Amino acid sequence: MKLLYPTSLSFNPDKVKSQFPGETISLHSYDVKASTIPSEHLDAEVLITWANAADNLKFAVQNLKTLKWIQSLAAGPNDVLNAGFESSKVKICTGSGLHDETVAEHTLGLLLLAARRFDLMRDFQNQGKWPGHLGGPQSDQEAGTFRTLKGARITIWGFGNIAKSLAPHLIALGATVKGVARSAGTRNGIEVVADLDLPKVLKETDALVMILPGDASTKHALNKERLEYLPSHAWVVNVGRGTSIDEDALYEALEGEKIGGAALDVFETEPLPEGNKLYGAKNLFLSPHAAGGRPRGAEELVVENLKKFQAGEELQNII
Amino acid sequence: MKLLYPTSLSFNPDKVKSQFPGETISLHSYDVKASTIPSEHLDAEVLITWANAADNLKFAVQNLKTLKWIQSLAAGPNDVLNAGFESSKVKICTGSGLHDETVAEHTLGLLLLAARRFDLMRDFQNQGKWPGHLGGPQSDQEAGTFRTLKGARITIWGFGNIAKSLAPHLIALGATVKGVARSAGTRNGIEVVADLDLPKVLKETDALVMILPGDASTKHALNKERLEYLPSHAWVVNVGRGTSIDEDALYEALEGEKIGGAALDVFETEPLPEGNKLYGAKNLFLSPHAAGGRPRGAEELVVENLKKFQAGEELQNII
Repeated sequence: MKLLYPTSLSFNPDKVKSQFPGETISLHSYDVKASTIPSEHLDAEVLITWANAADNLKFAVQNLKTLKWIQSLAAGPNDVLNAGFESSKVKICTGSGLHDETVAEHTLGLLLLAARRFDLMRDFQNQGKWPGHLGGPQSDQEAGTFRTLKGARITIWGFGNIAKSLAPHLIALGATVKGVARSAGTRNGIEVVADLDLPKVLKETDALVMILPGDASTKHALNKERLEYLPSHAWVVNVGRGTSIDEDALYEALEGEKIGGAALDVFETEPLPEGNKLYGAKNLFLSPHAAGGRPRGAEELVVENLKKFQAGEELQNII
Repeated sequence: MKLLYPTSLSFNPDKVKSQFPGETISLHSYDVKASTIPSEHLDAEVLITWANAADNLKFAVQNLKTLKWIQSLAAGPNDVLNAGFESSKVKICTGSGLHDETVAEHTLGLLLLAARRFDLMRDFQNQGKWPGHLGGPQSDQEAGTFRTLKGARITIWGFGNIAKSLAPHLIALGATVKGVARSAGTRNGIEVVADLDLPKVLKETDALVMILPGDASTKHALNKERLEYLPSHAWVVNVGRGTSIDEDALYEALEGEKIGGAALDVFETEPLPEGNKLYGAKNLFLSPHAAGGRPRGAEELVVENLKKFQAGEELQNII
């Protein structure tokens, strides 16, 4: 069986191979940015994709005639589907789970940036000025402020695996974490309420972390009405999808100081076009879709699915 | 017994009083920024200090004739000693331990800022530009980089209570933590080596966190020679005292890209004077002595020491 793995990340084929001693699995790297795949590899049965060029995937659709399974390392399979692959003809699996740790780490960083106002410190530094009001003796855990994670009420909207990876770090720093999801319940020891309770929970939020997927149901989930429930010191951190926030409403809330600030890693249009008003919005910090983009544990997922594939079992993360 | 507590932080006298039912302890607030203390309170036996004006402390030295114990909430007692109080005449206690969590939180934030390059993201944002090279598909945990705490080798130089508070957060994010202190050993499960091993440990460091005190023995502890041991991608984070770094040598290392960057919360002169070259140094992030400055658990320390004081026992944090 021939498997092609991408050159676009550090993937260790030996880690995979060692799990299948004596079996005739051949692993070959391919350049995901090239517009073709070498002719000697057109007999591949398995294709692992990561950050492929659109041309490359289109070539694969037309030329990999014996392909049975595509293992994407991205959280979503959009690029593979857009190229023309169909899940009725080839098994398509996502890299869901490979990005939990990295997105959680970035989100933790953005929350600390917001609480400690690293954004303002940088602006002062660039002007050659000492931001004395952000240092020295300070108030701590005062009601109506978000200046530390200790005692902060952090609401995570979209409570999947990234949230489960993030929450323990927040709790260890003394935050109180609540989740919001389609169905209420207790997950990993954390109270998760349903969308219906948003008005109540948003009113009691010091920082709102949004990790919603980008489908039609989440479009502008954070709109003008819901922004108004947030206290005037509350921060919004979005590491899910840009479409889940009504950016015009957010801009108005920021400029009118109706909320404390926003740290956004995702936008309705990416890259955020030059001249977009969000670049200069008050108390907004911009991160360029940098939270994830680094699949971790790709080899383990491939091994697990390769075993299932050979056993004819249902694959992990299949769409 | 009369105790004066400062107006400069949110201090809850009832929390203290409730621990001494039936006893005649009277607690009164006083304005630490005033140049005098009200005449009706000059009979105080206990003075709690936090961010007092120098004048206020000088007035206290001359006028609080029955004072027996000063409980500072600062990590060091410098302001009290500078005002003229002498530990041979009045018991002087520090607020050591009240700043561990807050400094640890800030340090964690600075490390994440460094790994994720929030400083550069901010600069691009301020220019109205999308920093695409800092987002999208990225490498992860590559040798010779410091782009995530996962797998990062973090060395904490000065391994006291702040380090013990910080280390578990770093380990939870996947970092490998080592300590450097005067004496080697294992503390809280972490390997701590002696100064003698600095050349070896600095060579194997992705991020160096400095939490050294500001005495003569630590002056320019991080000098030109030791900076040269650090790999060219390594970051320096200083939340201890500014004097522990030779700033000229650090500036040269930054400008020559001999190290990856520096996030400094403390400086040899604070505020850092306008025009100082460090404001514009390459890959330097400036934080205005903001890591601590927020004593936590002041009431608990006062209660503990008040009980010891009344029992005639040795006080906690006495100098």
